[in-house]
Amino acid sequence: MFYTIDILGTMAFAISGVLIAMEKRMDLFGILIIAFVTAVGGGTLRDLLIGDTPVSWMRDITFTYVIMGSAFLAILIKNYINYLRTSLFLFDTIGIGLYTVVGIEKGIHADLHPILCIALGTITASFGGVLRDILCNEIPVIFRKEIYATACILGGVTYFLLILAGVENDYIFMFAGLVVILVRLLAVKFKITLPSIYSKGN
Amino acid sequence: MFYTIDILGTMAFAISGVLIAMEKRMDLFGILIIAFVTAVGGGTLRDLLIGDTPVSWMRDITFTYVIMGSAFLAILIKNYINYLRTSLFLFDTIGIGLYTVVGIEKGIHADLHPILCIALGTITASFGGVLRDILCNEIPVIFRKEIYATACILGGVTYFLLILAGVENDYIFMFAGLVVILVRLLAVKFKITLPSIYSKGN
Amino acid sequence: MFYTIDILGTMAFAISGVLIAMEKRMDLFGILIIAFVTAVGGGTLRDLLIGDTPVSWMRDITFTYVIMGSAFLAILIKNYINYLRTSLFLFDTIGIGLYTVVGIEKGIHADLHPILCIALGTITASFGGVLRDILCNEIPVIFRKEIYATACILGGVTYFLLILAGVENDYIFMFAGLVVILVRLLAVKFKITLPSIYSKGN
Repeated sequence: MFYTIDILGTMAFAISGVLIAMEKRMDLFGILIIAFVTAVGGGTLRDLLIGDTPVSWMRDITFTYVIMGSAFLAILIKNYINYLRTSLFLFDTIGIGLYTVVGIEKGIHADLHPILCIALGTITASFGGVLRDILCNEIPVIFRKEIYATACILGGVTYFLLILAGVENDYIFMFAGLVVILVRLLAVKFKITLPSIYSKGN
Repeated sequence: MFYTIDILGTMAFAISGVLIAMEKRMDLFGILIIAFVTAVGGGTLRDLLIGDTPVSWMRDITFTYVIMGSAFLAILIKNYINYLRTSLFLFDTIGIGLYTVVGIEKGIHADLHPILCIALGTITASFGGVLRDILCNEIPVIFRKEIYATACILGGVTYFLLILAGVENDYIFMFAGLVVILVRLLAVKFKITLPSIYSKGN
Repeated sequence: MFYTIDILGTMAFAISGVLIAMEKRMDLFGILIIAFVTAVGGGTLRDLLIGDTPVSWMRDITFTYVIMGSAFLAILIKNYINYLRTSLFLFDTIGIGLYTVVGIEKGIHADLHPILCIALGTITASFGGVLRDILCNEIPVIFRKEIYATACILGGVTYFLLILAGVENDYIFMFAGLVVILVRLLAVKFKITLPSIYSKGN
């Protein structure tokens, strides 16, 4: 089941890359690269930081197939992709939940402090999108809008609270992931954002 | 001979960095950095991804000398550098051919899937230019024009086809490199580009 | 004492990140990220290049606390931060001196050529600021103004000259660091810049 989620998340990430790259009117190759970078960027930075190389997407060719396939599909059906935005947003959110928890568990495995494990989970879930925005020459969305990373952090905190509470490992994984997903869905639905630190007059 | 090609390729990459950095009116230090990053960026990302550290340019000081020397030379003769554009383009193309094949062989050595070896070769040949463009705050050329990466990929496919055909290792190296070089030369000469995915009206 | 300097330098780097992120009107999370990246970026690239993972900020949670604390403090007192600019500049400069020498010693430990050790020291001291500028979508300051990196390089040259002169290790560390600090202070005070390579008419 985790593998299926991982595949769906990868697809959603790749397609989000395709959509932004097409807005920037990149050529075919550029689009594929952006799709790839969006999908694997987070896991790659995670693996580099903890020294787990070759990085994970280089150890399983399946992800390359999934990314390339999703990207070509997205290009082919680009005129209809708006109808899929809800499904894509859902896959994306589920992917973020999964990647956060996977990152946390890799951090625990590398003996990192819980706070750093949460950071690693958040990096795994969000760095692909950051890279996508940098390569498209924009200030990363994550630095300006949405409560994206906050969801990952809350999920991460949940993860360690459940460990303290002595909950079983498999439940922790699922429950922490669900927190990430729910926070993000609720935040988007009710347009919750982080409080602004700038006074209105500015 | 490979070493000589490597040096020539490094020179060409470094000088291409100098030219763009001067267009952006960077100061001396900025120009040197861009020259350096353009020349070693691809190999560095390759080595990081497969965990082959310290990265290769840190293990042989010669490349640092070559890059710094080429950069200073390029700055000194900047008014005449237009006369050298053809030679530079040729060195650059030969360098790309070499780096592609070297990257592929490092990937094979790290037990990667052939497709990922080709990706690694393409990264080796092109990431320096991508970094150069990002640092100069432009959307990387590779995402928008030229058939640059396609040449690397075709060379990589040739590499593995020749392995399947049972050709001897040294010939494979040379032949795959030549494919990269020829595809790029022909593409530039005949202005071949990837088919556009955008309809004309857009 | 080194640890105290390291903390002060980290604070100064983090706060410089906060100031620029606030100019760009990023939200709270964006500001924290930029603070973090500015403070740990140089050490992270250094550790990745030589393969010393998990990277150093992941092995000591103190730095995370210091960065987050400084960032929140800077946001709270943002209207008064101008009065602290001199202290911040001083901490920043001391941090750069320290990071340069720490980077050099890590390079020596990894058996690198002296020139590459100096490069590694300069990377440690300056890459955080480069990342900060890239993430804020600006051409990095280091590529265009200030004599920042030149100070690191002169300190590094001093380091190896003192080794050749047979000076004791602890003195080398301090003296090379002081050279970095003094060069930067003098350069800023007397507005010394690198000679321009562009003729006036351009």
